[in-house]
Amino acid sequence: MKSATNSHSRSIPRGFRAAGVHAGIKRGNAKDMGLIVSDAPASIAGTFTTNRVRAAPVLLCQKRIAGRVARAIVVNSGNANACTGKRGKADAEGMAALAAGMLGIPPRTVFVCSTGVIGVPMPMDIAGKGIRLAANRLSTKGWADAAEAIMTTDTRPKLSCRRLRAGGSPITLAGIAKGSGMISPHMATMLAFFITDANIEAAHLQACLSPAVENSFNRITVDGDQSTNDTVLLMANGAAGGSPIGPRKAGWRPFRSALDEMASELATMIARDGEGATKLVTVRVVGASGKKAAEKVARSVACSPLVKTAWHGADPNWGRIICAVGNAGVKLDPGRIDIAIGGRRVASAGRALKFDPGGLRRMMSKPGFTVEIDLNSGTSSCEIYTCDYSEEYVRINASYTT
Amino acid sequence: MKSATNSHSRSIPRGFRAAGVHAGIKRGNAKDMGLIVSDAPASIAGTFTTNRVRAAPVLLCQKRIAGRVARAIVVNSGNANACTGKRGKADAEGMAALAAGMLGIPPRTVFVCSTGVIGVPMPMDIAGKGIRLAANRLSTKGWADAAEAIMTTDTRPKLSCRRLRAGGSPITLAGIAKGSGMISPHMATMLAFFITDANIEAAHLQACLSPAVENSFNRITVDGDQSTNDTVLLMANGAAGGSPIGPRKAGWRPFRSALDEMASELATMIARDGEGATKLVTVRVVGASGKKAAEKVARSVACSPLVKTAWHGADPNWGRIICAVGNAGVKLDPGRIDIAIGGRRVASAGRALKFDPGGLRRMMSKPGFTVEIDLNSGTSSCEIYTCDYSEEYVRINASYTT
Repeated sequence: MKSATNSHSRSIPRGFRAAGVHAGIKRGNAKDMGLIVSDAPASIAGTFTTNRVRAAPVLLCQKRIAGRVARAIVVNSGNANACTGKRGKADAEGMAALAAGMLGIPPRTVFVCSTGVIGVPMPMDIAGKGIRLAANRLSTKGWADAAEAIMTTDTRPKLSCRRLRAGGSPITLAGIAKGSGMISPHMATMLAFFITDANIEAAHLQACLSPAVENSFNRITVDGDQSTNDTVLLMANGAAGGSPIGPRKAGWRPFRSALDEMASELATMIARDGEGATKLVTVRVVGASGKKAAEKVARSVACSPLVKTAWHGADPNWGRIICAVGNAGVKLDPGRIDIAIGGRRVASAGRALKFDPGGLRRMMSKPGFTVEIDLNSGTSSCEIYTCDYSEEYVRINASYTT
Repeated sequence: MKSATNSHSRSIPRGFRAAGVHAGIKRGNAKDMGLIVSDAPASIAGTFTTNRVRAAPVLLCQKRIAGRVARAIVVNSGNANACTGKRGKADAEGMAALAAGMLGIPPRTVFVCSTGVIGVPMPMDIAGKGIRLAANRLSTKGWADAAEAIMTTDTRPKLSCRRLRAGGSPITLAGIAKGSGMISPHMATMLAFFITDANIEAAHLQACLSPAVENSFNRITVDGDQSTNDTVLLMANGAAGGSPIGPRKAGWRPFRSALDEMASELATMIARDGEGATKLVTVRVVGASGKKAAEKVARSVACSPLVKTAWHGADPNWGRIICAVGNAGVKLDPGRIDIAIGGRRVASAGRALKFDPGGLRRMMSKPGFTVEIDLNSGTSSCEIYTCDYSEEYVRINASYTT
């Protein structure tokens, strides 16, 4: 995995400006309001939470994305504007209108995202102050500040960047994301924003984004909870001056590969920075009878609190792993299951193998390892990225609203 | 809920003897081998884990229960005899054979249960020593010792007892159970044993046991994991001398009610004594469109780590509750959801109500409270009993095998 602070991760594609400021929605002086603006109309694609309870800004984005054109994203942390009824809807629209007024652009081209506490009305005076402040601070150097402004319990900002040639021009793709609790399949309280100066129409953009999200953000889990606010947006403004990128054109594959890579990079950063997490664990299921079965088994293992606490203690307790496999709701033969931790076989044909527990403990004390489960009953596989459960996870979450 | 130490909870029905001893499967000097014996052949009923990975003793019990006759239950803690292959099967049979030999009864009338670490072969020399020791200590006063011998991370033994008239005689029903991790729907690593001197044939006994388990042990969750070893057994030896109890006979309803009550009592004890638990929380979902929907929503809330950690912190963060409701995979209208904690409304029609957070915090600091979620879209309901997640849960589970 490339580091969040790789040399060019703070650069911003041409024709974009950004800002991140402290408005006062969060206590202290942490940044809590971000603004990302394209100087010209950009095409936009998005994916959203599948929770039945969706926050006001998610509903707004889902409506506006049909227009296919975006100029700006307003995003705050500290308040989710979820379960806030009609007032929440008006507040999300109000945030967009305020940004639109400051920037002189149509409100329908402004997208809004929020993350934070659920059920508390947005403090609109403070949010408004933040939007004005951010609009005045917009610059081509503000991208890293925006990455900070979307953080909640994240311990570090998450940025990723790629430069490539596509459509006959050198283009830049930049992404930021936030985790780090309520992280689960299908986009938990996670936000990610990608911007690029490539020239791609909205439909093609969506065709790139959906599979990229499916294989990255939808493959991580911190605690099995899915948020009311999850959103990934991708804006392309064509400012690099290249010709349009699309299927069966030269730049299409490199662009998609770059986006896929970046999405995986950011998703892994989120899993590694899960609340209280001390290590990143990749759960790989192979030899499954079908893709769905592979995913169910991988998720069952990755979501089991007993497995996650054992990982925290660097405890090679594979019995809990096989127990979680058996709980996945998938037909399987326990007598065929092989399990390896960090490349070392600990169980074969459903039974213990002799292994060196000391060596395994040392390996499991590292910041990351892979658990591989071979069901030996087919050719399908699935990988899920997750983390351990620590006392710190409990401490963080025992008093989040207060 | 009646206390585990209610006056007669240590008494044993006529014609039964029991023992609980320290064999040495567990370190220290905690009891780890229990034996429950009926002086005459008893009818038997049972329910078992639905995990695809089932321990050797579970497979043995499932086979033997078809014979409908039981004389003894051998049960050890400290080793689950799960994922131990052919050797595990032979060991479970060996434990039964050893007990049968000591007691002079047919091996097929001996049932075996194990709980503890998965994937480690049963130390048969130690287990054998324990079975011999227990057989020599059998007495009508050994019931409480047996309750201790089945404990793993339980902090206290769990006993329940009822006396009633049925079949023309005063009969006694006694039960013991253990939790306290891997506790989830459909009987997690939990064992429960009921014995009675009532006169009931096996088929009727099963007809009593299955619904009693469904509405008690299958309605608790500690951590969402289901074990490889879950077993509930009910033996009836008729030693009270009454006439046979069965459907449409006088004692049938009182007997079933007593069993239902005791199962709920023991299940609640298990939830309250969940690993690291500091409080018992009842999640009640009402107004659901169907029974399945009600249960899915209740389980989603009761299993959410974010909700459980908030309970631990006595944090009235109902946003996490409604988020878990939305994640249940049930069609619902968020705008109709009412939520009450400890009888106080905190959200109505999916939106925050003004409430006194200090008062709510004090109430949530008590050892138990109820969370009621009204979906306002039907008449179905479901109750699930669960507990909070504490740092202690992580500590206990980060190093269980070592």
